[in-house]
Amino acid sequence: MTSLANASDARDNSESQPSQQTPAREVVLTGDRPTGPLHLGHLAGSLLRRVELQQRFAQTVLVADLQALTDNSARASELPDHVLEVMADYLAVGIDPDRTTIALQSDLPALAELTVLYLNLVTVARLERNPTVKAEIELRGFARDIPAGFLCYPVSQAADITGFRGTLVPVGEDQLPMIEHSNEIVRRINRMANRDVLPESKAILSAAPRLPGADGRKASKSLKNVISLSASADDIRAFVASMFTDPTHKRASDPGTVEGNVVFAYLDAFDPYPDEIMELKSRYRRGGLGDVTVKARLVDVLEAVVSPIRERRARIVGEKTYLRDVLSEGTLRAHAVTSSVLDDVRAAFALKPRRVGKFITM
Amino acid sequence: MTSLANASDARDNSESQPSQQTPAREVVLTGDRPTGPLHLGHLAGSLLRRVELQQRFAQTVLVADLQALTDNSARASELPDHVLEVMADYLAVGIDPDRTTIALQSDLPALAELTVLYLNLVTVARLERNPTVKAEIELRGFARDIPAGFLCYPVSQAADITGFRGTLVPVGEDQLPMIEHSNEIVRRINRMANRDVLPESKAILSAAPRLPGADGRKASKSLKNVISLSASADDIRAFVASMFTDPTHKRASDPGTVEGNVVFAYLDAFDPYPDEIMELKSRYRRGGLGDVTVKARLVDVLEAVVSPIRERRARIVGEKTYLRDVLSEGTLRAHAVTSSVLDDVRAAFALKPRRVGKFITM
Repeated sequence: MTSLANASDARDNSESQPSQQTPAREVVLTGDRPTGPLHLGHLAGSLLRRVELQQRFAQTVLVADLQALTDNSARASELPDHVLEVMADYLAVGIDPDRTTIALQSDLPALAELTVLYLNLVTVARLERNPTVKAEIELRGFARDIPAGFLCYPVSQAADITGFRGTLVPVGEDQLPMIEHSNEIVRRINRMANRDVLPESKAILSAAPRLPGADGRKASKSLKNVISLSASADDIRAFVASMFTDPTHKRASDPGTVEGNVVFAYLDAFDPYPDEIMELKSRYRRGGLGDVTVKARLVDVLEAVVSPIRERRARIVGEKTYLRDVLSEGTLRAHAVTSSVLDDVRAAFALKPRRVGKFITM
Repeated sequence: MTSLANASDARDNSESQPSQQTPAREVVLTGDRPTGPLHLGHLAGSLLRRVELQQRFAQTVLVADLQALTDNSARASELPDHVLEVMADYLAVGIDPDRTTIALQSDLPALAELTVLYLNLVTVARLERNPTVKAEIELRGFARDIPAGFLCYPVSQAADITGFRGTLVPVGEDQLPMIEHSNEIVRRINRMANRDVLPESKAILSAAPRLPGADGRKASKSLKNVISLSASADDIRAFVASMFTDPTHKRASDPGTVEGNVVFAYLDAFDPYPDEIMELKSRYRRGGLGDVTVKARLVDVLEAVVSPIRERRARIVGEKTYLRDVLSEGTLRAHAVTSSVLDDVRAAFALKPRRVGKFITM
């Protein structure tokens, strides 16, 4: 995983990046909706970051199956398979269950209970103003017929973050309003309890731009412009061959454009030698560097990135009992944490604590 | 309690009233927000009905403390006391914990989980169209700043009803849209699962009109126009003395109006001899019956109704351990039922069942 870690380190220059001096009590909370196998965009955007963060902080990765239902309830029957696919992806890229708690959202009743409590602390108008909710409503074309669960999704996310006493949340820029929403709830609870029941959280912003799909549009499984973490060498060659470059760059000797060029976006994300990429970009801009050459380099780079993941993934993806056991153990650990947070929040509402020691979730 | 049961029977002529032939698997679900001691309006409107229903059906009375938070989160600290007050009221009026399961909403995590699942099946537009929500939004003056928990309150109520497989729900006319909302969710779940996971429920409408406050306005503790179930004989006299009658009925010999006359509203609700009340109304209308006389009769009637309740309530209201034990036992029973319903609903979402046998809620 060395080259992966390097690639990740090369992008870790965001200002909001926690320094090595951050106290050890920081807790990272992150996760994915299990809607199918993860792809290279996830690897560059979040997975490599997690492999690195688990070295420094307590980290929980939440498999957000209930959140997947908020916009996808028709395909609920595919969820169990998707959960195992995502588990295989996590372990294959190097997320270590001894360092990172991997937990299943729908098996953590305390998160549902926190959500229901927090719904009393947030107005509908405030939820409708949330830019992420607004944007996603447009993107998904819900218009006025938004499922209530979708409108309330920032509240559910606040439950996820606070349920683990999360203080660091790796997000994209577009998710910043979610953190603000969560912190508003935290402040409200702390004011109610007249003490610091919950910590506020801050974003870890990724310095890396979001990876585009092969066609230059937003990376999306449904647009078939992404490639999975178990892609074969042939898949990788076909994927790179299909990449949008610069339509005006007809011959190798022509000057070319690097911005919006998908091949360079992937090289920026995954090539372990950023200095050489800077040099290649200059040559490409001047003219004298053909698409065939840069694409050949990208094929090699991606094969080097993907092949160890592919091999590990192939070994574990069929081990469903093992994958389920890892998830069960993580979820039990998470259950203990979230139940204790729930008791603290209940106290702020003058609700008595539970004796939950014996609740077996799986 | 004979006269109380009679008074209740006298009003049981609603069309939607279940007949004695209703199969035994009917389940009654009802409850109250614990916002303080219950009053005579509750006695006439719901408590006497429950005492009667428990003879014929499985019945759960839910102490809806989480719902009390939806419009009252500022006064959360008063909740624990209010819960015990309501428990004392229940037992004092004759709700029998051996026949009726009395359970605490906030100690039933399955209800929160059902709420979160159901939120995916209901649109915001549908919630905003709910006439009960609309009316209450106006009543409480929320305008656009409705707490999200308030907007989602029909969903939480659907979780309460279905969480007990409730089939009969005693409600006022104004609450009928809540039942319809719940049934829409039931049909959606059953369609998803392709089998009858949950039963639809129907309303038990009360034939009795809602009792007014002493001043003729809506009965409300905050308007100080109600009287508690532990009222002393003096309290009752003062309460009846303050009752609005007919301002044009100055002398006993004047003809008087019965409609809108609070004294007759209370006699209709509580006097065990409806025939005599019909006769008194005629005399009052003709002239020749003074307010002093009808008020004296009402004082006697209310004293007969309240005194056994007052005595029983005085014996148990200080027995906090006993009240808590009754609530704990009911809640544990309710936990088993709601957890099993949750497993069935989870299956409709392709979520696996839990092994919850060991979850100790209190």
